[in-house]
Amino acid sequence: MASSDPELEQAASRIRRAYQPELFRAAGDRLIDQLASHLDRSEQSQGSVLNWTDPRQLTAQALDSLNAFRAAWKSPAEESPAVGDARCVEQFARLVELALANGINLHDPRYVGHQVPAPVPLAGLFDCIGAVTNNPMAIFEMGPWASAAEQAMIRTLTGHIGWDSANSGGIVTHGASIANLTAILVARNVKLGQSWEQGIAPELQSAGGQPAKLVVQADAHYCLARAAGITGIGTNHVVPAVLDSRRRMDPQRLDDSLTDLKRRGHPIIAVAASSCATPIGAFDPLVEIADVCRRQEVWLHVDAAHGGAALLSKKHRHLLAGLDQADSLTWDAHKMLFVPALCAFLFYKNKQHGFEAFRQSAPYLFDPSTPGLAEFDGGLRTLECTKRGAALGLWGVWSLFGPQLFEDLVDVTFALGRTLYEKLAAADDFVPLHEPQCNIVVFRHIPAKLRDATPAEVGAFQLRLRRSVIESGDSYLVPTAQNGVAALRCTLINPLTTADHLDNLLATLRHHGERLT
Amino acid sequence: MASSDPELEQAASRIRRAYQPELFRAAGDRLIDQLASHLDRSEQSQGSVLNWTDPRQLTAQALDSLNAFRAAWKSPAEESPAVGDARCVEQFARLVELALANGINLHDPRYVGHQVPAPVPLAGLFDCIGAVTNNPMAIFEMGPWASAAEQAMIRTLTGHIGWDSANSGGIVTHGASIANLTAILVARNVKLGQSWEQGIAPELQSAGGQPAKLVVQADAHYCLARAAGITGIGTNHVVPAVLDSRRRMDPQRLDDSLTDLKRRGHPIIAVAASSCATPIGAFDPLVEIADVCRRQEVWLHVDAAHGGAALLSKKHRHLLAGLDQADSLTWDAHKMLFVPALCAFLFYKNKQHGFEAFRQSAPYLFDPSTPGLAEFDGGLRTLECTKRGAALGLWGVWSLFGPQLFEDLVDVTFALGRTLYEKLAAADDFVPLHEPQCNIVVFRHIPAKLRDATPAEVGAFQLRLRRSVIESGDSYLVPTAQNGVAALRCTLINPLTTADHLDNLLATLRHHGERLT
Repeated sequence: MASSDPELEQAASRIRRAYQPELFRAAGDRLIDQLASHLDRSEQSQGSVLNWTDPRQLTAQALDSLNAFRAAWKSPAEESPAVGDARCVEQFARLVELALANGINLHDPRYVGHQVPAPVPLAGLFDCIGAVTNNPMAIFEMGPWASAAEQAMIRTLTGHIGWDSANSGGIVTHGASIANLTAILVARNVKLGQSWEQGIAPELQSAGGQPAKLVVQADAHYCLARAAGITGIGTNHVVPAVLDSRRRMDPQRLDDSLTDLKRRGHPIIAVAASSCATPIGAFDPLVEIADVCRRQEVWLHVDAAHGGAALLSKKHRHLLAGLDQADSLTWDAHKMLFVPALCAFLFYKNKQHGFEAFRQSAPYLFDPSTPGLAEFDGGLRTLECTKRGAALGLWGVWSLFGPQLFEDLVDVTFALGRTLYEKLAAADDFVPLHEPQCNIVVFRHIPAKLRDATPAEVGAFQLRLRRSVIESGDSYLVPTAQNGVAALRCTLINPLTTADHLDNLLATLRHHGERLT
Repeated sequence: MASSDPELEQAASRIRRAYQPELFRAAGDRLIDQLASHLDRSEQSQGSVLNWTDPRQLTAQALDSLNAFRAAWKSPAEESPAVGDARCVEQFARLVELALANGINLHDPRYVGHQVPAPVPLAGLFDCIGAVTNNPMAIFEMGPWASAAEQAMIRTLTGHIGWDSANSGGIVTHGASIANLTAILVARNVKLGQSWEQGIAPELQSAGGQPAKLVVQADAHYCLARAAGITGIGTNHVVPAVLDSRRRMDPQRLDDSLTDLKRRGHPIIAVAASSCATPIGAFDPLVEIADVCRRQEVWLHVDAAHGGAALLSKKHRHLLAGLDQADSLTWDAHKMLFVPALCAFLFYKNKQHGFEAFRQSAPYLFDPSTPGLAEFDGGLRTLECTKRGAALGLWGVWSLFGPQLFEDLVDVTFALGRTLYEKLAAADDFVPLHEPQCNIVVFRHIPAKLRDATPAEVGAFQLRLRRSVIESGDSYLVPTAQNGVAALRCTLINPLTTADHLDNLLATLRHHGERLT
């Protein structure tokens, strides 16, 4: 406390009460009990997958809780700390219950939705170490173990890519959108050497005036086109790389496209391939693409946010052959390594490239008297300054269960994708739209009554069907579109889902479909 | 499970074991006990503030743990689940201990370092709800309560800014660097209407060829110059706004600068003011700056990452007079609202501007049949796609303790800044370099032996002194530079710090200083 001002004394006393370790212990014990029971119910499909409430109504409820709950907790002057603490823990538990009762339950095996996993529950506990102790790691000093754990994971995963950890490196960031942006920024800064300082405009004028181009898998995640919009390249200068019949990048047509762009004088920032692309989970043929990029001397970035984890599976790592030839790649641990959001890795074959993304002076952050430590100060290489200990969950789960668990998770969920596909293909009222390479499956439900419907009618039905299913809480899946017509999309990313659950998914869709037609 | 393949059956069985709610419960109970004990020790200054180990050595230790611990846990076939689980919990606890023993302890009241708080411990527990249940909220459906809690906090905080929640709005993102980047991007897209699609180059050619400029408080956080580098404006086109003798932006000279830039034909993206700037915590005079920007028709962005919280203090909110005139502003909850990293708010006076930052198509994310929900789908307005429920900690703590706690935290820590300043000014071997406006204090220790030293020698001594202190674990403070000479910097951001701790800080610096001279 700062002075003997009685108001400040009282403020300090209220603060000490909120910071009491024993209050934390009592609330924490309740939280673990609540979370364990909630997991148990979710894993057994008790309750809804999604607890759907209109967003306006739920926001009003959250606003109420900001005012209502504390009204019930009196100030320290009014009651003894012991009584006050017990009331505080009760109210804490009610708030937790409110959050749990109104969320989506990814651990329910009926959840087959976005590329967001039902995480290994213990990963969330390791995450909690960082949340309580707050070790923010822009510089090593401010999060020594969080930084060391991140470095250790980077070295371990680059080993699985097939890279030498002396030359390769990487960084953890808050999601693949940021990782992909950072990679494109590095490629831009390498290709247009002064664009960081001079901006894009004079660079291009000196280069002959032709706009720079970014070549992107036609089905790539939207963040890659965004990166062009953000970095001053312009989304109009994103050149979609042509796909083959299975929606994979066609290396020969990529080669032709690069030759044509060069002939017309366009600087080429990078080629961005996908492992896999989001719409149907297609893996680009990286060996051939890398060969084209090497000959054409173009930076190769691979968005392996979803598929990177297949490196850990003996059965599926062939999908990533050639990944070691990329200049940079993104790999989300919060997708197929089954840790909670967000933990995305950006890797560089040549770790020096990590320092090309950003440049800044911040004397209060980076101590000039210890240059040897700069390599460990992540803030020089990440978009974030203050950063969560985002790799703690992965480090902890890996340390406990080893790579076997991650191999299991890939193998089981990829096999589920295949199983769902086979069930859809065997049913006469479902149409799978592709043969899956992983755990993403796109299809339509076409009940007999809709056999003669127009494509627009079929598409509208898929969207209504999905909304009916998700709002009922019976399952959770995702809308998409193929050839301009809406469709349904599942990612099998809860490893507790079984073949029986997939039978039930089809039954649920039929049941809701009947009510809608 | 997907099929009757025995290998897959075994994989699924290993996974079910890792996902057991009872294993989670046992590990969680241990974690809470460990964290509560750790908090207790830290709050009582038992042990070191920073546990310093060379980064190379600590990384090697983290790599060891990735291999060593799991070697001790046998596969399910080798032992009964009950025995296996007990061993797993023991190993979990050892991993937690490893992380805790090698971190920085912000809850130690001797921590007076970066603008990163000792968070309210219960905030980390609310965070843990999101970490375990993983509600990633790019779209409302995928994190209903996390989204509603964020919306409720946005409406509450915009009310404190003085804005009408019908017109104003905002978004939570992973840190102020990303929030500031997003704001500059909006300002760029508004000023150069087609730069998102066409890129920066053709925009500027059509505008007469003069490069666009970004006017930034000369002491602003490095992320603002970075934003110019990232968005294609170029860091050379950052115009530093001239400061007055107390390092606050000078409105008259800002006006002159804008007039001059316009006369020379430069489009002006924005003026970025600071509340407060990082070096010495100076608050820009926003009423006058807003008046200049309104007359000059230039976008005003305010980086109130640190100081925004002063709005909640009757004593200190005058520092932010005029903030309601900003077009956009950044406010970190993970600074002076004392929640763990990362929870940064970006606010817009006109909420429609939130949709100017990014544009994308992602049919599998945004359901075209329910346009009314799009306002609640944060992914349209954030750099992240998948996002953590980053506002849960703030929502929970606010609901439990109300705005009074935040007012207390601001008042107590700002008063501590004043107290430290007075102690430094009263000592003849310390020189405060400014009178603090908040809880950031910059100074030098100049023992008698150094009275006649050159500035370079004095600066080198500050850096050696700091390193000696932080590696000893006796305290944690930060290096900075003023007028090219190194100095020491404290942020009083652990509210458990008292005047006695500040006396001890001076004694610690003297003690280490004596050994070094």
